[in-house]
Amino acid sequence: MKSGRTGRCAVGTEVLSSRENRWLKEFRVALRGGLAAADGAVGVEGVRLVEEALTSGCKVEAVLFSESGERYRERLAPLVSRTDVGFPVLRTTDRLFEGIADTEHPQGVAALVVPRKVEIADVLAKPEGACAPLIVVLAGVQDPGNVGTILRTAAAFGATGVVTAATGQSGTASPFAPKAMRASAGAALHLPILTGMALGILLTQLKLNGIRTVASCAHEEEAGAMAPWEVQWCEPVALLVGNEGAGLPEDVVHAADGRIHIPMATRVESLNAGAAAAVVLYEAYRQRRKAMGSG
Amino acid sequence: MKSGRTGRCAVGTEVLSSRENRWLKEFRVALRGGLAAADGAVGVEGVRLVEEALTSGCKVEAVLFSESGERYRERLAPLVSRTDVGFPVLRTTDRLFEGIADTEHPQGVAALVVPRKVEIADVLAKPEGACAPLIVVLAGVQDPGNVGTILRTAAAFGATGVVTAATGQSGTASPFAPKAMRASAGAALHLPILTGMALGILLTQLKLNGIRTVASCAHEEEAGAMAPWEVQWCEPVALLVGNEGAGLPEDVVHAADGRIHIPMATRVESLNAGAAAAVVLYEAYRQRRKAMGSG
Repeated sequence: MKSGRTGRCAVGTEVLSSRENRWLKEFRVALRGGLAAADGAVGVEGVRLVEEALTSGCKVEAVLFSESGERYRERLAPLVSRTDVGFPVLRTTDRLFEGIADTEHPQGVAALVVPRKVEIADVLAKPEGACAPLIVVLAGVQDPGNVGTILRTAAAFGATGVVTAATGQSGTASPFAPKAMRASAGAALHLPILTGMALGILLTQLKLNGIRTVASCAHEEEAGAMAPWEVQWCEPVALLVGNEGAGLPEDVVHAADGRIHIPMATRVESLNAGAAAAVVLYEAYRQRRKAMGSG
Repeated sequence: MKSGRTGRCAVGTEVLSSRENRWLKEFRVALRGGLAAADGAVGVEGVRLVEEALTSGCKVEAVLFSESGERYRERLAPLVSRTDVGFPVLRTTDRLFEGIADTEHPQGVAALVVPRKVEIADVLAKPEGACAPLIVVLAGVQDPGNVGTILRTAAAFGATGVVTAATGQSGTASPFAPKAMRASAGAALHLPILTGMALGILLTQLKLNGIRTVASCAHEEEAGAMAPWEVQWCEPVALLVGNEGAGLPEDVVHAADGRIHIPMATRVESLNAGAAAAVVLYEAYRQRRKAMGSG
């Protein structure tokens, strides 16, 4: 037994007690994309995502190392071995870790983390350090990989908030599901994300707060659709991104203040969802950076 | 037996003869990503990709429908039912089709297609309808999904040619592998792609032909790296894209005529490979379109 390594809650190399089994069960449910625990904790796996969780400012509930995951202990030591960390650092066997992990070749490090609670006011507010809100609204983006990629891109290009919403046709994958979390490279824990908002209420709130809505039209030239470079991105803007196949519902496209279409050289039907979002958010960032005087 | 539907080589609902078994075997090898046949044919699956293959101008060797794939027969009829098509249109059972398909829920339509033969001169030449060559060089991009996404983006934003090359550290996934083909949405059959070029020879050829090389540096600010908007994209340019994790080899980065880095708002380590390529190629297209007077 090597218990007590962290001076707090480390447990032995075999997890046997009922308290320890409870932790393993929680990790298993969270890592495999079941419902979040009652307190909303989600699971992250792998040294980079655990690192993101520990530096995100979100509440960490527990960190778990397997035997072979111990090789990352040194890298994570400054974040988990302080005497004031308020969470247990647990150990288990490689065999038990493989039984709870979602990946095929787990690195042997995982954490349970509670994403920050976000209110609509947080998303609508003028953010510090940016000229105006730049909100990404995912309305019916079904693939968790696409959701994660868009979050990663949104964080990279200075989006100030993200909202996920269902449309009549389709829901949006959870940003905190394991696949989305991996694709986001941890951005899901850093961005303010409001999940499961009713789209109608959101659109009303945006209008009331003077935030212009721009509907992304990937599949065809909508009448009067602008190129990304024709949009005034320094104003308060919400970019609406729809389903991978069907796009945004027609009524949402027409209710939006503007429509955006990425001009293309060829007859290729569309860019994939991640590439299209990257292009639009890059253009927004290019303009905003220039306006802030650093471009 | 419903043979003779196309008036040529359609076979019955059961495939039994040795000639037919040979076809099924070829489809199986091609669709599951084995080596291309001796004549270089590759497999594509699903109605959209088969449509792309049939309209690409590439040589089609055979088209195969399963029983349930027959529902796409009408949509594809103008492309497969002409009396002058020079390839057999085959039929098989759903059970046999599932046995050769690479996807979990196959649509029941597949084709064997020979990608166009591309010489280096084709890639280096000044293309029609563009101000100058815009060449994308994939040097060590390992994930077939990333290769396909970049091809799709390259086609969308008017790249005039693509070259794949190995580096000392890693190879580049085949653009014609099933996963790459799907991610490219068929762009792999439309773009001129030169595969498996030796990177050193390519760089020399680019220099001799007055084509400026720009190395994509995803992971850190290289000394003197330009933002995408600082590059003169209307000149003849080759964009070098490296491995997802390691980037381009250091000597390649330093030998390039320019280095490019996408500025970002936050400490997120990097964009994913597909998003980064989309951003850079969009910027190239934006400039080129403007220069051609249509932006």
